[in-house]
Amino acid sequence: MKKLFRLLVLAAGIFVMKPAVAQTTDPAAFTGAQPKINHYDALYIINSSDEKKIGATIRNINNALEDPRLKSKLNIELIAFGDGVATYQKSGPFEQALKGLQAKGVILAQCSNTVRERHIDKNTLFDFISYVPSGNGEIILRQYEGWATVHP
Amino acid sequence: MKKLFRLLVLAAGIFVMKPAVAQTTDPAAFTGAQPKINHYDALYIINSSDEKKIGATIRNINNALEDPRLKSKLNIELIAFGDGVATYQKSGPFEQALKGLQAKGVILAQCSNTVRERHIDKNTLFDFISYVPSGNGEIILRQYEGWATVHP
Amino acid sequence: MKKLFRLLVLAAGIFVMKPAVAQTTDPAAFTGAQPKINHYDALYIINSSDEKKIGATIRNINNALEDPRLKSKLNIELIAFGDGVATYQKSGPFEQALKGLQAKGVILAQCSNTVRERHIDKNTLFDFISYVPSGNGEIILRQYEGWATVHP
Repeated sequence: MKKLFRLLVLAAGIFVMKPAVAQTTDPAAFTGAQPKINHYDALYIINSSDEKKIGATIRNINNALEDPRLKSKLNIELIAFGDGVATYQKSGPFEQALKGLQAKGVILAQCSNTVRERHIDKNTLFDFISYVPSGNGEIILRQYEGWATVHP
Repeated sequence: MKKLFRLLVLAAGIFVMKPAVAQTTDPAAFTGAQPKINHYDALYIINSSDEKKIGATIRNINNALEDPRLKSKLNIELIAFGDGVATYQKSGPFEQALKGLQAKGVILAQCSNTVRERHIDKNTLFDFISYVPSGNGEIILRQYEGWATVHP
Repeated sequence: MKKLFRLLVLAAGIFVMKPAVAQTTDPAAFTGAQPKINHYDALYIINSSDEKKIGATIRNINNALEDPRLKSKLNIELIAFGDGVATYQKSGPFEQALKGLQAKGVILAQCSNTVRERHIDKNTLFDFISYVPSGNGEIILRQYEGWATVHP
């Protein structure tokens, strides 16, 4: 009986160990990090006026929200500073995409320092965005709060 | 008496809850992350020789130091690696700006790997900077120490 | 006797304090963060098709693995997404460098979203890589697991 038990433990051990060994030897067995908690916060950072870059960042946010590992668990804030203020300009092409993000709960934040330094009229920016004292302060504070940061 | 106490608790509850509710519905009510501790550390990263980029990084550091949420609470190290070594070149335009950062307590660090790989004469770099074994090692170690990282 | 003891304490204090003071005043005395644990994990991020950038990222990974502060203590995963898929293209020049990283234990991961969105035939990518649901999800999840992230 004791022998059988040992055999079962051994068999279970092999069964449990195998994926771990396979992960390091077979790339196909590695499928990425797995979620362990029910809520995640991420700060997305944009400081470029390159429309390709801004568009990619918005697409990346949507992809993260749709990742099966994070779906319905992910809260996102987008912070724009420096040249990234272009993201929120009424003259730019991102109004619908940004409203789409906001409808999914994404906070759209702009660095007040950038606006002041560059003498930007706030009326030229979308009126549905939020302002924070500085984009850099936001990046530092959010990391200390445990948020992930993504700067595509 | 008990009733009055309950009423006070309820009133306090409404007072405390309101901003939280407003945050999610009114973008104007969101003013960014709030500081909860008295000391923050941040590692700024520069690996570009683009003078516009270097200048922006220095400006970003000054902005973070002046952010009312972080003022007098923030310790900063700037790490240059790869093309970012241009930041510390005597032939470049950043001497005064860097001395200004140093006067505010910012550590100015250069990746030794870059210097060795590129056969850079250290005499061509400012003599008031510090050297670390590798910029990438510094980035990893600082994050494990709980520092925020900013890569503008 | 008591006086001598006090003098010794004072002398020891000066001896102990000096390096700390020197660090803040003498840049040459600062040599970077020091390792405090025996295992580190880092996620390297590439989302550019610029071969100079991809090459630099691979070089940075090798430098981090060789940093005396991290040597034999560092586990690395490289995640490619967006334009960074170029890293893993058979038509590109990185096969040997990537196999070199893999031989050192580096996980080579590709964002499945990018492959799907861009209708990329997986047969055009190296068959020794791994796939994760989304690069952005990977970045967020790894940070929550305590990994450092590096985006050169």
